[in-house]
Amino acid sequence: MSETIVLAYSGGLDTSVALRWLAEEYGAEVVALLVDVGQGVDREAVTARATAAGAADVVVVDAKEELAREFVLPVLQAGALYEGRYPLVSALSRPLIARHLVAVAREAGATAVAHGCTGKGNDQVRFETAVAALAPDLAVRAPVRDWGMTREQEIAYAERHGIEVPVKRGAAYSIDQNLWGRSIEAGPLEDPWTAPPEEAYALTLSPERAFHAPQEVEIELEAGVPVAVDGEELGLVELIGRAAALAGAHGVGRIDMIENRLVGIKSREVYETPAAALLLTAYAGVEELVCDRDLAHMKAELAARYATLVYNGLWYSPLRAALDAFMAQTTAAVTGTERVTLYRGSCAIAGRRADSALYDHGLATYEEGDSFQHGAAAGFIHIWSLPSKTWSAAERSREAAPA
Amino acid sequence: MSETIVLAYSGGLDTSVALRWLAEEYGAEVVALLVDVGQGVDREAVTARATAAGAADVVVVDAKEELAREFVLPVLQAGALYEGRYPLVSALSRPLIARHLVAVAREAGATAVAHGCTGKGNDQVRFETAVAALAPDLAVRAPVRDWGMTREQEIAYAERHGIEVPVKRGAAYSIDQNLWGRSIEAGPLEDPWTAPPEEAYALTLSPERAFHAPQEVEIELEAGVPVAVDGEELGLVELIGRAAALAGAHGVGRIDMIENRLVGIKSREVYETPAAALLLTAYAGVEELVCDRDLAHMKAELAARYATLVYNGLWYSPLRAALDAFMAQTTAAVTGTERVTLYRGSCAIAGRRADSALYDHGLATYEEGDSFQHGAAAGFIHIWSLPSKTWSAAERSREAAPA
Amino acid sequence: MSETIVLAYSGGLDTSVALRWLAEEYGAEVVALLVDVGQGVDREAVTARATAAGAADVVVVDAKEELAREFVLPVLQAGALYEGRYPLVSALSRPLIARHLVAVAREAGATAVAHGCTGKGNDQVRFETAVAALAPDLAVRAPVRDWGMTREQEIAYAERHGIEVPVKRGAAYSIDQNLWGRSIEAGPLEDPWTAPPEEAYALTLSPERAFHAPQEVEIELEAGVPVAVDGEELGLVELIGRAAALAGAHGVGRIDMIENRLVGIKSREVYETPAAALLLTAYAGVEELVCDRDLAHMKAELAARYATLVYNGLWYSPLRAALDAFMAQTTAAVTGTERVTLYRGSCAIAGRRADSALYDHGLATYEEGDSFQHGAAAGFIHIWSLPSKTWSAAERSREAAPA
Amino acid sequence: MSETIVLAYSGGLDTSVALRWLAEEYGAEVVALLVDVGQGVDREAVTARATAAGAADVVVVDAKEELAREFVLPVLQAGALYEGRYPLVSALSRPLIARHLVAVAREAGATAVAHGCTGKGNDQVRFETAVAALAPDLAVRAPVRDWGMTREQEIAYAERHGIEVPVKRGAAYSIDQNLWGRSIEAGPLEDPWTAPPEEAYALTLSPERAFHAPQEVEIELEAGVPVAVDGEELGLVELIGRAAALAGAHGVGRIDMIENRLVGIKSREVYETPAAALLLTAYAGVEELVCDRDLAHMKAELAARYATLVYNGLWYSPLRAALDAFMAQTTAAVTGTERVTLYRGSCAIAGRRADSALYDHGLATYEEGDSFQHGAAAGFIHIWSLPSKTWSAAERSREAAPA
Repeated sequence: MSETIVLAYSGGLDTSVALRWLAEEYGAEVVALLVDVGQGVDREAVTARATAAGAADVVVVDAKEELAREFVLPVLQAGALYEGRYPLVSALSRPLIARHLVAVAREAGATAVAHGCTGKGNDQVRFETAVAALAPDLAVRAPVRDWGMTREQEIAYAERHGIEVPVKRGAAYSIDQNLWGRSIEAGPLEDPWTAPPEEAYALTLSPERAFHAPQEVEIELEAGVPVAVDGEELGLVELIGRAAALAGAHGVGRIDMIENRLVGIKSREVYETPAAALLLTAYAGVEELVCDRDLAHMKAELAARYATLVYNGLWYSPLRAALDAFMAQTTAAVTGTERVTLYRGSCAIAGRRADSALYDHGLATYEEGDSFQHGAAAGFIHIWSLPSKTWSAAERSREAAPA
Repeated sequence: MSETIVLAYSGGLDTSVALRWLAEEYGAEVVALLVDVGQGVDREAVTARATAAGAADVVVVDAKEELAREFVLPVLQAGALYEGRYPLVSALSRPLIARHLVAVAREAGATAVAHGCTGKGNDQVRFETAVAALAPDLAVRAPVRDWGMTREQEIAYAERHGIEVPVKRGAAYSIDQNLWGRSIEAGPLEDPWTAPPEEAYALTLSPERAFHAPQEVEIELEAGVPVAVDGEELGLVELIGRAAALAGAHGVGRIDMIENRLVGIKSREVYETPAAALLLTAYAGVEELVCDRDLAHMKAELAARYATLVYNGLWYSPLRAALDAFMAQTTAAVTGTERVTLYRGSCAIAGRRADSALYDHGLATYEEGDSFQHGAAAGFIHIWSLPSKTWSAAERSREAAPA
Repeated sequence: MSETIVLAYSGGLDTSVALRWLAEEYGAEVVALLVDVGQGVDREAVTARATAAGAADVVVVDAKEELAREFVLPVLQAGALYEGRYPLVSALSRPLIARHLVAVAREAGATAVAHGCTGKGNDQVRFETAVAALAPDLAVRAPVRDWGMTREQEIAYAERHGIEVPVKRGAAYSIDQNLWGRSIEAGPLEDPWTAPPEEAYALTLSPERAFHAPQEVEIELEAGVPVAVDGEELGLVELIGRAAALAGAHGVGRIDMIENRLVGIKSREVYETPAAALLLTAYAGVEELVCDRDLAHMKAELAARYATLVYNGLWYSPLRAALDAFMAQTTAAVTGTERVTLYRGSCAIAGRRADSALYDHGLATYEEGDSFQHGAAAGFIHIWSLPSKTWSAAERSREAAPA
Repeated sequence: MSETIVLAYSGGLDTSVALRWLAEEYGAEVVALLVDVGQGVDREAVTARATAAGAADVVVVDAKEELAREFVLPVLQAGALYEGRYPLVSALSRPLIARHLVAVAREAGATAVAHGCTGKGNDQVRFETAVAALAPDLAVRAPVRDWGMTREQEIAYAERHGIEVPVKRGAAYSIDQNLWGRSIEAGPLEDPWTAPPEEAYALTLSPERAFHAPQEVEIELEAGVPVAVDGEELGLVELIGRAAALAGAHGVGRIDMIENRLVGIKSREVYETPAAALLLTAYAGVEELVCDRDLAHMKAELAARYATLVYNGLWYSPLRAALDAFMAQTTAAVTGTERVTLYRGSCAIAGRRADSALYDHGLATYEEGDSFQHGAAAGFIHIWSLPSKTWSAAERSREAAPA
């Protein structure tokens, strides 16, 4: 009896060829799993293509709500940006897709799952580490990594097997997309001195061609969850979409970085993350009013670790669970509104207010109503300076000592 | 015989009144020290005003080069931003001024130095901690903190003593400025919901009124030091000035934040730091090509600590010396050029190149010439996943165990 | 009408004098609060002394269980040691006592609470910061800090007011004790070159005079809570007492350190913490079997921060709450048994086992049954070394370049 | 023409078999390199055995001084312990041996180097990462990892090829040793519940059989370097030897831990590090007198990172260079003497003094001569508590708000 393999299927060239190749190489029944994470997918066309490529079955799952609630939201609340900039777009959908791969594999009685990643990216690690955590007994096949075909060979293979894959405009790029953003790699981007061609972008207008006037947007948050844009209450998926549309129209959310991949190389990555740009700014604006200093400083430090952990494919790990528990303590007070100005590529805080603000006008003001005890400062500074004073005296006597 | 006090003198109302008040209260000879840190100062007018206020002597020091080389440059190289955003403008000039206060005090045989800070800001701490480290034997007077006069009372005191202080437009704000930027506090800014009025700004145009076309600027760095702008070699002070002018004309460098002061309160701070915005972006762009991943991640963590340390007035501390030694190891390779696009408030990387880039096209490319060993990935992932797998198995058996 | 002040009362000289002094200085009704935290207190004698000193009321609270559950346990689970050594003995009872001060103050309608700490220790900060967090409206009096009496003046004051305070043996020392340990300061300890005299110790025998034979002790833990010693199930307070007796009899738990106080000075501190020494060792031994590497490394880092936070009096802070949430994620798997050998001052792990051990004999063994995939190592190392290799090549080419 | 391979040769079974296997498998000239790092080696016997096994050449290097100065000293000064306990014994000799492998390879015109490590330990990573950094062009052979022979097969192979390897007592263990300590693995140690058999130890007596009386030892340090024991000046290698002998005779320096290996598994490791135990205690004792609090806290945090980095084989990395630069700033003041008591397994601080002590008796004392400004504490505490107070008030109002 043949084995069953569940393949994470996108409808593109790599996974279409992989589907057929797995069927032939392993004599396997291949179940194609298409997970809709907001990449803008034509389910019928993809299903048809999978079938044409030889899928024994095609499963389509709408996971947008799941992605938004369980993956994007914790990352937004943590303020987690890899290397200070990348909002972890693909690093969030991979563990989600892996979870569905495992679920479908269990249902189908499969002994293996498969993905279409190459051997030098991060996504292979994310898929395989997630499966190792969720279903250590399942084998993972990585046909694209194993076969070593060039793009031309893949196209020839597809033609030979009657698999029709539309040749896309901008096919020079390697693209990944979900509701939290879009990544663009390869092609002309491989030269870090060259600015990305305008054709590489799909979610954001260029600042120059963006809307000609500034736009103020109000984002409302309740206990750390964005709930309304400009007064209109929206579900999380819809709200992220709205944020993306608004920010994208103003050219906000482009990232161009040299990124350190887990697999030990630097790569030039371009991202469009308009929703992340707007919502992270809004979140930070309300949070700075309500979050205690010591907590804020530690949170910032842990956010960087959190981002690295997730980037490195360790979503399903006890450390993430512990960091999440830490972060969860910071969200309750994040209830308030942020006003943001979008304009030609920039996303600037215009104002913020919060129900439980630690900003206290009486303490902060220099005008009438000042409630700060100025006299306390002298004592504070005396003690604050004491180590410097003591160290300085010791340093002097040491330097003065005969050698 | 009367004692001598050296006062850090700015020429404004607070320090002019303080000058006279110290002379009267302590029966002291007051030496006024004006340190030019790039705040745009009329030396003659300030000298005249100090004399009118009763200064026994007026000393003027040009410290722009010193500020640039010894204070701004380490902070630029460290990438140190307090709370992720503030490039430490005033936190850099205070320890420098304190050093000159001490030097002048030694020369004048003074027993005390003085500053004009209030009791609720950070600058009092920075002055006093620096003096404690540099000259633990010198007393520090803080007349403005001690006397408790309102602004109106200060004006009356000045008039009574024949001290003429020009009433400035925008006097509602409390301003501090040096060549690295400008801070604006108080007045209408005390409401965090209100956007700063345009009149508050002096170094940057509003994005809307900024130059109508994008401008590409090339910054060259040599061993971590910015040395040229658009091919023109410039000394550091001049280069910072050029950067400020370029970025300011494009509305780049405005910061609006709720900041956690050392003295335990949150305050709303507005900054204009066009030079910092442009040069930090340029520095980061070249550095991301040449800095090893592990080093880069640790550096980012230590940069936050560095910024907090400096913000908190501990410039002259053994920890800063040790952090500087760490940071100094990261600069040698930062030789290269960054292309930045300035446009209506945004400052975006357009391209970067470096002599010792760790970015390796052969490793990074997905096209012909790929030198990455794809096969190694399977072994790597196996071992990378092993802890997740082991933990996951233990977790399952624990959950399955009878309670 | 006179105000009411609630004083944290120990029965010693300082607080007895403070009691009367507060009554006289403020014309206040003073309520003496004695909190039993395991310091070994004669409740009747202390009550009588408080009354003699002029207390309007005496309240005695047994808080040993509360101390054990709510303060000691989290610190044990976190593995929090200040400066790597001090298990936070007094830093735990202060926030607990502050909580009771506030509770009694509320009941008694008091407007202030008071403590008997001097102005250069940590405990004053811990009391006052705790009260600030729990009851910002209550004033805090610190008579001992304010009055500036010497010890002799205090004794004279006590005699003058008919307050009998027994002169204790070893009175040269300043002692604080609770069920988690005992701190000893001052007197001959102020010279860091001199070993502490044997008379300073009360909970531990000297290693030389300790029991002559090694003793193996088994500590059982359930979900992070120590529940049995040598097979005997014990409540937490009793178990801590048993641990203290066992370890103390073997000379285990003495600490001699130069400690950095929050108030900016170094002090020489001697502690006896036999229970902490034994239980922390046992905890760590089981934990090392069950805690994932990344989690363990991060936990160790956060444990140091946790300890500093608590040491610095910030028990009631949002950061501690968040760190506790992190730590709570690490306890569930800590179920197992640790065998420890106590012998003449040392406390050594002899063996450990756990229900959910991540130690996997199949993976660890070098003998038959080895299930580790040795072949994976080559791929792992190739990728692990890649950044070193790339950096090294760049470094060489940089060094080879003409200057 | 045949290729030349330089093999790190110990004289044991693994490397003797590897020598012949490499010669046969690759048809290579094998140069055996024996590096004396203090493992107690019989150079002639080892040389003879290498020749018998078929070595084309045998090179012996005495690297004890190099190990002490360039590897042990930085780690001692950093206070670097992996997972808080392991002083990195083997992790220090591996990069040193790799450096000599490369040097000999260059001299011999070799194209590859080789080691005798298995595929599941850390040492293979340390060797290969070091070679990757030092000589990226050299291939690395790992015959033991590749061939998959059992111990019995190795013995048979050796007999078949006339290689005489003495069967050692305690051969059940896998041992590695240098002047900084000794590691023991495998055999009966693989059960974490069983205490290590006494036969496993070679450098330390059991506490019970150790010298019956306590011994005080004085260690003198100059600028961070231990220079004398009990008044006798010693070179570093000799001093480490003396420390090992003294501590070992008192049963000091045994470590029994479950360690997290880089390759993703937990293993039970037993170490004997008597010199490290004594010298680290002495170093810490002097350092706590002279090191500023903030610097000390940061150093402790970085020491853990440093240890992990070195443990993970990244000795030759830019991050270690930067951490070393940080650490180097902390050594200058470490001049002083530490008195340590050794007794039946414990190594306790008895007293310490230092030339530039920051411990200030005037500030620390509670007796006559107290120079601390007690009055400053009130102001300090007021400001220190302000964030707690503000947060607490906000928390209360939030909790009181209608949901």
